[in-house]
Amino acid sequence: MLTDTSILDNIAIILVHPKFPENIGAAARTIFNMGLSQLIVVSDRKLDSTAMTKMATHNATHIIDAMEVFPTLEQAVAPFSFIVGTTARRGRQRGSERSPRQIVTELAPLVTNNRAAFLFGPENCGLTNEELKYCHATSAIPTNGFSSLNLAQAVAIHCYELYHGLIHERKDIEPVPRIATSFELEGMYEHVEKALVRINFLEAKNHTYWMNNIRGFLGRMRLSSRESNIIRGICRQFIRHQKQQEEEQQVP
Amino acid sequence: MLTDTSILDNIAIILVHPKFPENIGAAARTIFNMGLSQLIVVSDRKLDSTAMTKMATHNATHIIDAMEVFPTLEQAVAPFSFIVGTTARRGRQRGSERSPRQIVTELAPLVTNNRAAFLFGPENCGLTNEELKYCHATSAIPTNGFSSLNLAQAVAIHCYELYHGLIHERKDIEPVPRIATSFELEGMYEHVEKALVRINFLEAKNHTYWMNNIRGFLGRMRLSSRESNIIRGICRQFIRHQKQQEEEQQVP
Repeated sequence: MLTDTSILDNIAIILVHPKFPENIGAAARTIFNMGLSQLIVVSDRKLDSTAMTKMATHNATHIIDAMEVFPTLEQAVAPFSFIVGTTARRGRQRGSERSPRQIVTELAPLVTNNRAAFLFGPENCGLTNEELKYCHATSAIPTNGFSSLNLAQAVAIHCYELYHGLIHERKDIEPVPRIATSFELEGMYEHVEKALVRINFLEAKNHTYWMNNIRGFLGRMRLSSRESNIIRGICRQFIRHQKQQEEEQQVP
Repeated sequence: MLTDTSILDNIAIILVHPKFPENIGAAARTIFNMGLSQLIVVSDRKLDSTAMTKMATHNATHIIDAMEVFPTLEQAVAPFSFIVGTTARRGRQRGSERSPRQIVTELAPLVTNNRAAFLFGPENCGLTNEELKYCHATSAIPTNGFSSLNLAQAVAIHCYELYHGLIHERKDIEPVPRIATSFELEGMYEHVEKALVRINFLEAKNHTYWMNNIRGFLGRMRLSSRESNIIRGICRQFIRHQKQQEEEQQVP
């Protein structure tokens, strides 16, 4: 008899530019074993389906068949509302990193009504800062010193924690309502950026730095879809108002 | 700066007749990453050191170099006092299986003064009942249904839980004193067996069944070295007494 694992259907594993198709297969096997179902790959290369299927074993072939492939990360994360970037432990940014177990605890009330994704970078270098921009949280597996696990093992440990925390030891968790998707947030950030450029808050030399800071705190707020629309509305109105002022000044 | 992980030196990962040297290498990498140091292999075949070292990566080469290889499991487990057998979830025996997390919680007070080992069976079939005889506890990774992880991932999840529970989230744990090693217990079981055969408690047709039951509860008791010697002393004395009686009966 299988446990009800439907909540895990709201969670995707996203492999960002993986180098070895075997690792995609190994991820598929783990995803299946831990009751998850969604595997997404960001890649612009042709993927070797024989190598993938061999590592997936026949039990998890359907995960490979249903796998979605996107050329860019932005497209891949668009429908998700809570995005976790996985990284190796790093000295400097350690403060902001949480363990997979802490992440799952945080995720638990969210995933009833929201879709979440875990991003895993390429085998040799991990996620770039540009890719981490899409993330609302960062997860680092506690290891001894600064060593790192291989990709398949990192995926296995995250899927294991998801199954353990959300199904095996699920406690009564109060679900939170639907929050904004990445698509909605990106649209909002674009509006915010336009408005901030307009008031010269964002100047060429520190544009990205400040914008990343703003994304950081807006991303952490877990805005609802409605709230992100309100922020967009404010920006839109602000830009409109500025334009009117400029036009009035030009009229003598 | 590295955390003090010396307690993990008391824990060994034992691969029992692994088929693929790559999995030995992958285990070595995880062992290193999670602050452990001891890898033991039970095998009567020549191990391909190129394949092992490649998967271990150069960081963990020293784990492969220091790896011990034994022809039998009995020799491999001899110095250990707490032995955990890892299995896939099975319907029938599920009651006696614990999750890796529960096992680590149970292990925590033991490993300050005692050596513990985790046994992993071959990739295709897992540990036999004969091999599970040496174990004081059984650990099964919670998965969806009766699916099973691959060997390297099962090792990774156990090492991760060990590091997580014993180092990363270590709470103040009251250590327990040294308990009997497998070598001491096996000697004791042999003595117990002799005594029970002597009194016809163990008959040919159900010998193994009853002996396994006795091993089961004696193994769970966590006898100290001294206590196992007391039990041996009782058996020895019992056998001696029986012999005397028999000899007296033969004297008319």
